[in-house]
Amino acid sequence: MSNAAKRGGGHSGRRPGQSGTREAILAAARRQLAEHGYDRASLRGIAAEAGVDQRLIAHFFGSKQQLFVAATGLPLDPAEVLPRILSGDPADLTERIAALLAEGLDRPEAHDRLTAIVRAVATEPAVATMMREFFPRHVVTSVAPLLGPGDPRLRLNLFGTQIVGLVVARYIVAVEPLASMSPAAAADAVAPTLARYLIGPLTPNEKEPPR
Amino acid sequence: MSNAAKRGGGHSGRRPGQSGTREAILAAARRQLAEHGYDRASLRGIAAEAGVDQRLIAHFFGSKQQLFVAATGLPLDPAEVLPRILSGDPADLTERIAALLAEGLDRPEAHDRLTAIVRAVATEPAVATMMREFFPRHVVTSVAPLLGPGDPRLRLNLFGTQIVGLVVARYIVAVEPLASMSPAAAADAVAPTLARYLIGPLTPNEKEPPR
Repeated sequence: MSNAAKRGGGHSGRRPGQSGTREAILAAARRQLAEHGYDRASLRGIAAEAGVDQRLIAHFFGSKQQLFVAATGLPLDPAEVLPRILSGDPADLTERIAALLAEGLDRPEAHDRLTAIVRAVATEPAVATMMREFFPRHVVTSVAPLLGPGDPRLRLNLFGTQIVGLVVARYIVAVEPLASMSPAAAADAVAPTLARYLIGPLTPNEKEPPR
Repeated sequence: MSNAAKRGGGHSGRRPGQSGTREAILAAARRQLAEHGYDRASLRGIAAEAGVDQRLIAHFFGSKQQLFVAATGLPLDPAEVLPRILSGDPADLTERIAALLAEGLDRPEAHDRLTAIVRAVATEPAVATMMREFFPRHVVTSVAPLLGPGDPRLRLNLFGTQIVGLVVARYIVAVEPLASMSPAAAADAVAPTLARYLIGPLTPNEKEPPR
């Protein structure tokens, strides 16, 4: 995409450059989400602030959920990824989680985005509110039937604690050896925890095997 | 302790009020640790900045390590607590961790301090550096013989990820139900993870039981 197109300086006259429009929508979404939170931010309000037709948001991003994922910089949409890894054989869930996580830790743009989100969550109450509202609405509903017994929100809360803690320790504090070890080794160390939070027993006394 | 004593306005003339001296040492320690990091900050430099005799630091705090714990606001000294909980029967380690953690989550001044530390770590590189230097030096050496096989630093790194992630999720983002559940229930959910990081198998394929 050329800079001219980014600035919307193309010759078609139909609408500004795609990249410029997309960026304007993302910037408006970030402001509206920070001001109103996920629940009260509307696609109509975001379109108005960006000065575009609301249908363009659907064209570029699809749903409000997908716009949220793009605006916050989440490297993956958890509502898309978690059902996929949960739908295989539970006996191999740990390996599937480890493989996906190792891939994410190996991609600088993915872990940079996660690090930025964790920093923002820890310091900007509006971002924390946004995240707190987003996950129950859209992740829980799509994932709940595939999780182990008990409160699906708690399972996803706990899953989140381990991801956030890993990002803080590996990328923000950069403790050794965790900061320098291979993505695969770091992923292997936390994958059993993540698998337990999704489908395993949640308390020491809960002996039943994962479904 | 009265305000007069805090300001060091006592009548004895021998030295300022104990609380004033203690606070002056803590403030100097925080500045010196932030500027020089844990390794290079010296008790002599801290004493000089606080304007007190270096022996007073030993009197109030004991070692440099204990001064660090007090200055950063860690609610517990991990080099003291971890050996204690690790020295009992490994079969009950999860329960001992859960009990200790539940107690910490139940004390507002303990989780407020942890939350302040996690926020500072996520936003102030000097605090992150301080923590990164402190744990290998003083926690690892006292705890390593009691941990499971493999790199003891990695085990403590992983232990830290789960504590930090829990603090972010429960107190900073305040995700539900984790934020509102009882300290005991929250502690029970993460205690098996913490026990595994200390003594259990670290990778999915590592089948040997904890020692």
